[in-house]
Amino acid sequence: MIVVVSLNPALDITHRVDNLDWAGVNRPADVQVRPGGKGVNVARVLTALGVDVLLTGLAGGAAGSSLRAELRTRGVHACMTEIAGETRRTFAVVDSGRGDTALFNEPGPPVTPVEYARFRAMFAAQLGGATAVVLSGSLPPGLPARAYADLIALAADAGVPALLDTSGEALMLGAAAGPEIVKPNLAELHALADGAGSAELAGSWCCSPVAAAASHADALRVMGASAVVVTLGSDGLLALTPEESWHARPQHVSGGNPTGAGDAAAAGLAHGLATGRPWRDRVTHAAALGAAAVTAPVAGELDLSDYHRALAGVQVSAARQPCH
Amino acid sequence: MIVVVSLNPALDITHRVDNLDWAGVNRPADVQVRPGGKGVNVARVLTALGVDVLLTGLAGGAAGSSLRAELRTRGVHACMTEIAGETRRTFAVVDSGRGDTALFNEPGPPVTPVEYARFRAMFAAQLGGATAVVLSGSLPPGLPARAYADLIALAADAGVPALLDTSGEALMLGAAAGPEIVKPNLAELHALADGAGSAELAGSWCCSPVAAAASHADALRVMGASAVVVTLGSDGLLALTPEESWHARPQHVSGGNPTGAGDAAAAGLAHGLATGRPWRDRVTHAAALGAAAVTAPVAGELDLSDYHRALAGVQVSAARQPCH
Repeated sequence: MIVVVSLNPALDITHRVDNLDWAGVNRPADVQVRPGGKGVNVARVLTALGVDVLLTGLAGGAAGSSLRAELRTRGVHACMTEIAGETRRTFAVVDSGRGDTALFNEPGPPVTPVEYARFRAMFAAQLGGATAVVLSGSLPPGLPARAYADLIALAADAGVPALLDTSGEALMLGAAAGPEIVKPNLAELHALADGAGSAELAGSWCCSPVAAAASHADALRVMGASAVVVTLGSDGLLALTPEESWHARPQHVSGGNPTGAGDAAAAGLAHGLATGRPWRDRVTHAAALGAAAVTAPVAGELDLSDYHRALAGVQVSAARQPCH
Repeated sequence: MIVVVSLNPALDITHRVDNLDWAGVNRPADVQVRPGGKGVNVARVLTALGVDVLLTGLAGGAAGSSLRAELRTRGVHACMTEIAGETRRTFAVVDSGRGDTALFNEPGPPVTPVEYARFRAMFAAQLGGATAVVLSGSLPPGLPARAYADLIALAADAGVPALLDTSGEALMLGAAAGPEIVKPNLAELHALADGAGSAELAGSWCCSPVAAAASHADALRVMGASAVVVTLGSDGLLALTPEESWHARPQHVSGGNPTGAGDAAAAGLAHGLATGRPWRDRVTHAAALGAAAVTAPVAGELDLSDYHRALAGVQVSAARQPCH
């Protein structure tokens, strides 16, 4: 069983509106409600792949109840710890005419130390049956930036490998806790390098953007992560592993919805981690899942036939070692 | 006790956003959640006035739970019948920079005949202690347009006078059921007159807009309503009563938020109806409440000192009889 941690999930509400009036009254032609957040997307993709998965995390209030109900409806096995605060909502307004989407992301609910302690105990109890742990997304207000590092250490004590997909300080502290994989995207990597957080990451950009990404990703390995996988958008992903470095590139995907592509890739990496697949195999499947997710209209959803089609088109090559 | 009926209430969610990007990701600086809908606004204003009020209606799903919780928080005495569908949300995006507001109103939940029958029995049981009934707002999908007429007839059987504030066919059928007061605004009156619904309302516009409104309002009396009060925006309100016709006009209110002003006026009229105040008195208070509501930033909220100040400035004059 893969345990996925989503400490700041969301209830995603999408309004599709014709003839949008940004200064008046609109009556959406279509309203969709879905469970959202990066960890939730990972759990949904793993569920679609038929993998035994348990989604854990924090949920509260009416939006938390809706989130639980929407997860049940979609067959996602979840055990969310109740909090007093209300799970955040995201509102997406899709302008059917122009094709633009405006997103309104509410801040996460405040989480108390007692609530986190209750979650932590539940998480620890699940580690006995876990083959891998995925920690994904932002931390809600009130949780310390070291929360992921704490959970990675707990998993390591139980002998369970961890994949971390987050940003900023939580990513740096988490990487230092020695997870098997960290999976930043290019923007998260740049933000780390630009921030004052780490002297190791402040090295100069060199060679090509991919080589530069490799250089910065390597810094995360120096900090403690066994492997670093950087998602590169349509360029696929770059994996710096304890053995070799790989660049997996899917065939060109036209159009589509890139939101959730990184989460689908993370699901593929986690599945490979849990089953001990060789790295070349892991990155191939992760790149194919990312490409298939772009084809799906909604983050967290996936058409298996798109995945199988993408798998045939992925090109994997050994990547150059990062330039030090 | 005044019984207020809100068959299609809403959970109002307001996002205040700086530097709004209609084609990108926004992080609202402020998120507000409030109980909404016309009947809810009426009940909130009556509660603020210290009037004994019971809010009744239909609520369901997570949004319905939030609605109930928000009503409790605000001290509004409510007994909402549970439905399987989910209470609608309205989503307002306020552009802090430009001051524009975009509103996204979800459709109401489907209501089954059994759910309506359950509500109706609860409503009938409350009539024993009622001094007046207010029926306010749109009907959710599934309810027949004659639903308000049905409830008005039930109230009449129990000797309880009714005020109806709705639009379209529900207003016409409701007026025919003989409520004490119907309270359309100008737009609702125009829509009725323009629609093919009633030959009586299709008379020609004549004299001034106010006199024309009087003419169309009179048609609603011919249909069965004892009195018709038309809210005229900043021009106050026009009341055609069994005795005389009145025009009550508040002092000029600059700026402000007109949403909910009609509901505040309805609350004033209902209070006058329940206590048997003379009509001149009723329209004075209703106009003052409407003006005070414009001053308040949020529909359904009211500063009593604004109300008392507005009261001193209302000018009431006998209105001309409608031109036939």
